[in-house]
Amino acid sequence: MDDLKGIHMISEISSNSNPVIKYACSLSRAKARAEHGQHFIEGEKLVREAGESGIRLTHVFAEDRSVAALYEERCEHVFTVPRHVMEKMCESRTPQHICAIADTPKQKEQGSFEGSGFVVALDAVQDPGNVGTIIRSADAFGAACVLLGQGCADPFSGKVLRASMGSVYHLPILQTADLHRSLSESREEGFQLICGHLKGTTDLKLRSDRAVIVIGNEGNGVSDRVAELCDLYRIPMKGKAESLNASAAASILIYIFAKEIGS
Amino acid sequence: MDDLKGIHMISEISSNSNPVIKYACSLSRAKARAEHGQHFIEGEKLVREAGESGIRLTHVFAEDRSVAALYEERCEHVFTVPRHVMEKMCESRTPQHICAIADTPKQKEQGSFEGSGFVVALDAVQDPGNVGTIIRSADAFGAACVLLGQGCADPFSGKVLRASMGSVYHLPILQTADLHRSLSESREEGFQLICGHLKGTTDLKLRSDRAVIVIGNEGNGVSDRVAELCDLYRIPMKGKAESLNASAAASILIYIFAKEIGS
Repeated sequence: MDDLKGIHMISEISSNSNPVIKYACSLSRAKARAEHGQHFIEGEKLVREAGESGIRLTHVFAEDRSVAALYEERCEHVFTVPRHVMEKMCESRTPQHICAIADTPKQKEQGSFEGSGFVVALDAVQDPGNVGTIIRSADAFGAACVLLGQGCADPFSGKVLRASMGSVYHLPILQTADLHRSLSESREEGFQLICGHLKGTTDLKLRSDRAVIVIGNEGNGVSDRVAELCDLYRIPMKGKAESLNASAAASILIYIFAKEIGS
Repeated sequence: MDDLKGIHMISEISSNSNPVIKYACSLSRAKARAEHGQHFIEGEKLVREAGESGIRLTHVFAEDRSVAALYEERCEHVFTVPRHVMEKMCESRTPQHICAIADTPKQKEQGSFEGSGFVVALDAVQDPGNVGTIIRSADAFGAACVLLGQGCADPFSGKVLRASMGSVYHLPILQTADLHRSLSESREEGFQLICGHLKGTTDLKLRSDRAVIVIGNEGNGVSDRVAELCDLYRIPMKGKAESLNASAAASILIYIFAKEIGS
């Protein structure tokens, strides 16, 4: 009997109207994610990354019973579901064969980043693909954490999770309702604040082993109030494009200053 | 009378079944774009960029008559259309108030890039957002041209156009059915070929004032056959992310080597 093999039992859900499926679907909404402190994860890579990063998976759904069995001991509620239920839950047009519900990592308090190194702060970066890509680049270059100001895409929405390729689980993702205040406090604590800006210099020197790299909104860049706190840096360009894609610009900034801080 | 104001007359189209509207919609398909040598452009910025770059606009559609009138002298067929027709033609969920049909710039022959400077080549980069973002970064850093190998997203599809923010009109976009051969020829002509690769060195020196920066596929990177032709470079990373987003990695590579070639 299956229920003797592991600690938990694998059940089958075959209907889209099952309350568990409805709950999983509800997590596509930011309000439900905030209310329950949980989020929905699609695909093998992300489910694995979450598990390996110590995120608690409360529900796992797999099409294949042998895949479901891999999670039997680690997860309280493990289900097999047919294709149409998988498609109902997942945002991807052609979903993979596994998905899960997980506890969202607790957001630390603003301004809690300490030690040396660098932080990436986002000022109203709205596009989920950009937010995910920037978190991935921040992770790749060793950022201490990512700080999201008001107006940013929810880091635990499906699109951000997928674009981050699991990096949301690798480093702390802090959120603040007042980016200006958080950055002011960081500056007082010795962080050098740097933002990409059209009026910036192309020859900016680091004065500290602690820096915050601030990334601005897709259309408007870093807000004036926040920019006033920062040293302005302009990525040298010589072509006809007026600007770079927000996540491309962010990745270049992170590359440049991570290298300087690391060296 | 309107038809006396300019060279051409502004007509009104109010039905989605009008043949001109059907033709505009057909250009969402790559096959139709190739057959007619035309593509469809959404939004004021892209229509303006195309016009300013010397691209011939054959049809302009605007909701507002005064906007349509701006194109009367420059474009043979200028129409006003109601909102529902605009929505029928455009891919964006909330389209802007102008769109157009334009001649696609003639693709130059492969291997026709000359002089010094750098070229960005794409090896099966499939995601339209990535292709557009990479073309935008190539433009921003002054690439001589962009070369698309087999398997890349069509540069004149709506998504690539929008992600490029008009950069497709700023520099030649070449296409080749055999990227390996095109790159071999470039190497014989004195171009140093460089690609991002996990097995690469983080300390690659330029040996030429002419370089091709090769960008690989999202999942698999640069193909083995193409990588064999190249000097392999690895972007130094120290975090937990296994890799960067394709367009983020491409933008960093272009930034690094454009600066070296320019200096």
